[in-house]
Amino acid sequence: MRIDHQKAWELLGSMDRILLLTHRLPDGDALGSVFALYLVLKALGKQVRCVTDRIPASLKAAEIPCEEPEFAPDHVVTVDVGDRKLLGEELDALYGGRVELSIDHHGTNTDFARYSLVDPAAAAACEVLFDMLRGANFPLTPAIAGELYIGIATDTGCFRYGNTTAKTMRAAADLMEYGVDTAYLNTEIFETKTRAFTAFERMAMNALQTHFDGKCALMLITREMYEKSGLDESDDKAINALPRQIEGVYVGITVKEKQDGKGFRVSMRSKEPVSAAAICASLGGGGHRLAAGCELTGTKEEVVAALLAAAKTEIDRAL
Amino acid sequence: MRIDHQKAWELLGSMDRILLLTHRLPDGDALGSVFALYLVLKALGKQVRCVTDRIPASLKAAEIPCEEPEFAPDHVVTVDVGDRKLLGEELDALYGGRVELSIDHHGTNTDFARYSLVDPAAAAACEVLFDMLRGANFPLTPAIAGELYIGIATDTGCFRYGNTTAKTMRAAADLMEYGVDTAYLNTEIFETKTRAFTAFERMAMNALQTHFDGKCALMLITREMYEKSGLDESDDKAINALPRQIEGVYVGITVKEKQDGKGFRVSMRSKEPVSAAAICASLGGGGHRLAAGCELTGTKEEVVAALLAAAKTEIDRAL
Repeated sequence: MRIDHQKAWELLGSMDRILLLTHRLPDGDALGSVFALYLVLKALGKQVRCVTDRIPASLKAAEIPCEEPEFAPDHVVTVDVGDRKLLGEELDALYGGRVELSIDHHGTNTDFARYSLVDPAAAAACEVLFDMLRGANFPLTPAIAGELYIGIATDTGCFRYGNTTAKTMRAAADLMEYGVDTAYLNTEIFETKTRAFTAFERMAMNALQTHFDGKCALMLITREMYEKSGLDESDDKAINALPRQIEGVYVGITVKEKQDGKGFRVSMRSKEPVSAAAICASLGGGGHRLAAGCELTGTKEEVVAALLAAAKTEIDRAL
Repeated sequence: MRIDHQKAWELLGSMDRILLLTHRLPDGDALGSVFALYLVLKALGKQVRCVTDRIPASLKAAEIPCEEPEFAPDHVVTVDVGDRKLLGEELDALYGGRVELSIDHHGTNTDFARYSLVDPAAAAACEVLFDMLRGANFPLTPAIAGELYIGIATDTGCFRYGNTTAKTMRAAADLMEYGVDTAYLNTEIFETKTRAFTAFERMAMNALQTHFDGKCALMLITREMYEKSGLDESDDKAINALPRQIEGVYVGITVKEKQDGKGFRVSMRSKEPVSAAAICASLGGGGHRLAAGCELTGTKEEVVAALLAAAKTEIDRAL
C-alpha cells in the first residue's frame, strides 16, 4: 500500500527493534539512505541495526560506526530497494517477505513491502527521506545531512544527470546549510581513484576499440586486468562510463569477463537516438533506454561479435 | 571604484555601442558570462559586440551566433577578468586602459576598470551577473539562463569544488526553472571527450609515474603526445586534474613541454596539508594553495629532477 511522507514518518515512530536493509552492491544512495535513517532512528531512542553489503572504496566517506548487538527485529524497513530480489538471496530469504516499510524513488517499485513511500520524481531515496524529515521538522545533524547529501550527489552524478531537478538542487543547498563539508565529500567520492583503479583504468583504456566510424566504442575487460591491478569487482563501476564519453560515440559497451569464467557481464550506454535498451533486449537483457545491460556466454570473440552485430542493427535503424 | 549590482546595472543601461571582452584562453565562466551579457544587452536594443579567444572543443555548447558588424566602441566592459593583462597583449594594448566596467568574482581583481562589480563570495562571474539581473527583474530567456548555468557549472567543477555555496546551488536551481536543459549541457561539457583528447589522455596516463611512496604523482607531457593525438594545446586542461586524483597522492604534477621547445609549463595540484603554492613559489611560480603553477627551462630530466626535489622538501615539511 502506497503511503505519503507523513504516514511513513508516523509508521517509523511507532516501530522499535528495527532492522534497516538496502540493496546489495550498494551505491552512494543506498548507503546514504540506510545510514541517515539509522542515525535518525537512534536519535529517536530506538533500537536499530543496519546490514549492508561491502562498502566500495570510493564510498568510505559514507561509512559510520553502527555496530549494534544482534537482535531479532520486530520490524524490517528497506531504503532504495525497488524489488525484494535486490536484497540478495540470503537477506531476501530471511526478510524479503516481511518488509513493513519501503522508502524508495524507483518508479518500478514492486510494492513488495506492506507500506511503500515511493516518489519517482525524486532523484534519490535520500531526497525522499529528506522530504519526509523536513515535513516532520526533524532536527538534522551535520552527520545525517552529510549522508543525505551523499545519496543525492551520487545518484545524480554530482548534479550532472537528467534526474537532477531544481528541487534536487535546493535540497542539496539546504543540506549544505546544516554544516556538510561538501567539497571534502565530493573530493573523496568523485575525485579520488584508488591505485588499483588507476592501474585498471589504464589497462581498460588501452583495450578500448572503436567500430562503425567511431559510432560504437567497446572495452573488453579481462580477468587478467582485475588480477594485475588488484581491483575488487565491486569497485569497477566507474569504468562503465568511459566508452560513451568519446565524441561521436553513440553506443559505449563495457564487457567484463565473469569471475567464474562462465561468460561475460555487459554494461551498455547510448546517446539519443540510439537505444541501449533495444540492443540489450535483442541479446536477452534489458534496462533503461540509455543505460542497459545483459549477460552473454561464449568465447571472447563470439561475445564481441554478437555485441557488435546487435549494436550495428540499432545504429543502422536509428541514425 | 567598486560599485554594487544595482549601480552596475544602471551603468550598463546608460551605455550603447559596447564592446564586451573576457580573458584569453576562455573557460566556461568567461564564455558564459560574455555571451549572457551580450544577449541581455541585445535584448535591451543596444549595439554590442563581443570578442573572444578560441572556444575550446568541450565548450562548443556555450557558443552563440553573435556576428556583428565591427564598430568603434564607445564603451568597453569586461567579465571574469581579474587583471587587464589577462585580456592578452593585443586586446590589453587596444582596450586595457579604457575599461569602464569590470564584472568579476576574483578577490584579486586589480581595479583596472573605472568601475568594478566584484563579489569574491560568488563561485563564478555568471553568479555575479545572475544576482545583478535578478535584482533588476530582467526577464531571463532560456538562452541567457543557459549561458549563466554554464558559467556556474564549469567554475564549480559541476558543483564539486569548495567555492560551491548553498547560494550557488539555489542560483543553479532558479536557472533550471528558466528552461535550461542542464542534462544536455552537462553531458556535452563534462561527459564528452574528443577523440584527440581520448588518445592524448591514454598516452598521458601511460606516462604517469609515482614517487615518495606514492605521495607524489608526475605526468610528463611531450610534444609527441600533442602531435600523435592531434590535440590542440588549448584543449589540454582536463589532464591537469588526473595525477592528484590517485589515492594517497598529496602532490599531482603535470609537466608540459612548450610548443616552441623552450622549456616546460608546470601545473601542480596538492591536498592538505601540502601546499602546491609553496612548491611552485620555490621554483619561481605561484598560485593558489592547492592549485599552482610555474615555468621551467632545461632538459626533461633536469626539470623533473628539480620538481621532485622541490616537492620532496614540501612533503617532508608538511607530512
